[in-house]
Amino acid sequence: MDRSRLEAFSDGVFAVAITLLALNLTVEGPGHGLLRHQLWEHRWSFAAYVLSFFIIGIIWVNHHALIKSIVLVDRTLLFLNLVLLLFVVVIPFSTATAAEYLPVGGADVKVAMALYSAVFLGMSAGFGLVFEWTLHGGRRAVPLPPQAHWPARLRFVGGGLVYVVAIVVSLFNADVAFILIALTAVYYIVERTPAVPAAPGPADDSARTG
Amino acid sequence: MDRSRLEAFSDGVFAVAITLLALNLTVEGPGHGLLRHQLWEHRWSFAAYVLSFFIIGIIWVNHHALIKSIVLVDRTLLFLNLVLLLFVVVIPFSTATAAEYLPVGGADVKVAMALYSAVFLGMSAGFGLVFEWTLHGGRRAVPLPPQAHWPARLRFVGGGLVYVVAIVVSLFNADVAFILIALTAVYYIVERTPAVPAAPGPADDSARTG
Amino acid sequence: MDRSRLEAFSDGVFAVAITLLALNLTVEGPGHGLLRHQLWEHRWSFAAYVLSFFIIGIIWVNHHALIKSIVLVDRTLLFLNLVLLLFVVVIPFSTATAAEYLPVGGADVKVAMALYSAVFLGMSAGFGLVFEWTLHGGRRAVPLPPQAHWPARLRFVGGGLVYVVAIVVSLFNADVAFILIALTAVYYIVERTPAVPAAPGPADDSARTG
Amino acid sequence: MDRSRLEAFSDGVFAVAITLLALNLTVEGPGHGLLRHQLWEHRWSFAAYVLSFFIIGIIWVNHHALIKSIVLVDRTLLFLNLVLLLFVVVIPFSTATAAEYLPVGGADVKVAMALYSAVFLGMSAGFGLVFEWTLHGGRRAVPLPPQAHWPARLRFVGGGLVYVVAIVVSLFNADVAFILIALTAVYYIVERTPAVPAAPGPADDSARTG
Repeated sequence: MDRSRLEAFSDGVFAVAITLLALNLTVEGPGHGLLRHQLWEHRWSFAAYVLSFFIIGIIWVNHHALIKSIVLVDRTLLFLNLVLLLFVVVIPFSTATAAEYLPVGGADVKVAMALYSAVFLGMSAGFGLVFEWTLHGGRRAVPLPPQAHWPARLRFVGGGLVYVVAIVVSLFNADVAFILIALTAVYYIVERTPAVPAAPGPADDSARTG
Repeated sequence: MDRSRLEAFSDGVFAVAITLLALNLTVEGPGHGLLRHQLWEHRWSFAAYVLSFFIIGIIWVNHHALIKSIVLVDRTLLFLNLVLLLFVVVIPFSTATAAEYLPVGGADVKVAMALYSAVFLGMSAGFGLVFEWTLHGGRRAVPLPPQAHWPARLRFVGGGLVYVVAIVVSLFNADVAFILIALTAVYYIVERTPAVPAAPGPADDSARTG
Repeated sequence: MDRSRLEAFSDGVFAVAITLLALNLTVEGPGHGLLRHQLWEHRWSFAAYVLSFFIIGIIWVNHHALIKSIVLVDRTLLFLNLVLLLFVVVIPFSTATAAEYLPVGGADVKVAMALYSAVFLGMSAGFGLVFEWTLHGGRRAVPLPPQAHWPARLRFVGGGLVYVVAIVVSLFNADVAFILIALTAVYYIVERTPAVPAAPGPADDSARTG
Repeated sequence: MDRSRLEAFSDGVFAVAITLLALNLTVEGPGHGLLRHQLWEHRWSFAAYVLSFFIIGIIWVNHHALIKSIVLVDRTLLFLNLVLLLFVVVIPFSTATAAEYLPVGGADVKVAMALYSAVFLGMSAGFGLVFEWTLHGGRRAVPLPPQAHWPARLRFVGGGLVYVVAIVVSLFNADVAFILIALTAVYYIVERTPAVPAAPGPADDSARTG
């Protein structure tokens, strides 16, 4: 099986999920007060939209790098990748729920933020499964030297620990959990070290674009 | 005609359909009781979402393997493939309907589960049409030895029989039909034998990724 | 500019539009009468879904064949292609409107069916613009001998005349217009003559899949 | 990293965003007056749909040309491209809001048109960030001679200035702002000079299609 169709399908799912996020942006329309007040009341929707957009964007960029290191696509990989996508696709729902409850507060916003964090944790765990698959069974991916396994794990999957912390924090203060996830996203956007080498040969796209 | 655009269009439809599934995940929002109760009340929606997600995922993986065996794309193939996609695209609707009626029970849930099974049966029949097309007329696909036709048929299209059974079971007990479909999906995810060889030459993607 | 990205973007739009068609499939849900009665009441939605699905599928297949004959992509072509896509994207709306008014009848169903036909006419006209672009200015596409221009026009664009007739018929009898469009779709699915040769060279995908 | 997956993901987002625009096209349906009156009342939705469709189309065509000049894809480029896509994805929302308020008038329509213009300005700024990235650091893209930087900037990013003007004009007269944006779109569709050369080598798609 080939890598290109795995990428095409995953890119399609990432692209649709990231675009469906924006379906949550709405205003009540004429007859529901001044438009600028309506927009202000939906400020949490806009913040949650931007945050979820960049988190999907980060996982897409990392997916991009990880899949490029793969040389042998099998059915196991395809299904592990589906676990990752299962959670990516739920992000518009968890984002909409968080955005609806953030301005309300109370017990419900804690549940909403724990759900928001848990969906990202599931996505991160799915990504970790794909990553572990690449580490084991020598011919699957460009081999990483064993001493590079843990640093790569930390870089790729370390974000998952933040989501565990965010779930716990949600139960005390939903706003702090939101800020924690946002700061992690900013860190991942700014941070630049490549984590894995790309597969060589005809699949080496750096040759195609150089 | 070329195989790559058939794949690209099919992947697009699979990706959008699998993502639209998640549009059915909603909660009523603030003012409709505790959020955790609302989430619990929608547990059937989540279960149906996960099941339909993996069934679309399985058919995508099989489609992937089948299309790779094809060497000659003609208009007949394109339209048979459209029959398959016609049913894939209806899955978010049949899933939403099943999820709405599963907690209600009564006569309607039997109709809803029969519809849910029938759409999968249609998808399976569409897949079977594409598969039969590859078996006949020697230059269309990498030839399977005749003694391999029936085993491949069973592996590729055997799932369709489960959906016939599920339709009948639905009319007696919708929950049992749901569990039957779920067990079949788990079987297809775990099972690993490749069913058809890939087409060689420049289209042989294992060369591109190896 | 390259042909592959034109194909990728067009395929994306076709795939999303064909999938969004199914968003029009809904039932009112529990508490609105028997499910099987609700499904029956929406029979026009299902019929309109299937018809629009195959009409988008036919234009995709033809688009596929036409773009393969192109050797030189310029900005004019990209914008003519956008005119085609502008109408493709409106099809879910015109389909939903037709499906809503077909069971109602009266003066409104004539307007709804005229709109349904007019959107297909616009799509057909957009396709015709792309096709005419390929005929003129020698280096743009694999040249067709002049005596083949009119037969190719008839095959590619002749469907557009049916939509003109369908608009007029709509104003007298919406059901007849619907059946006329459906019969034309069946004709295009069954009919098999290729209309244009493919571009040779590295872009010749038959070489890639053979 | 490779250019092709950046293109595939971007094309997916452009394709979904341009198709979701049409979700804003609706009529109230039977029992809400004559259909032709309903369609007339939604004329601003249709006008806003067409305008936003072509503006997304123009940015896609320009994106297409710009990405072709790139030889080295890094994480910075991927995130700058995400900023561009962040605004593209919001266009269906800003379009729907503008279409809802244009027939209403008053103070709200000024806010709605300023929002409509501001989202295009954000998209234009995101495009400008990607473009500036290509100009600096010699190996990233086919080098433009320094004297060509400002003409290319004007052609690629000049549209952004129109959106600044449109925001200001919106606060006085929303209709004039709408017409200003529409005239700019027509200019960009008619104007034909290529702005940047394409990257040579295996990635040179003109070789693939020529």
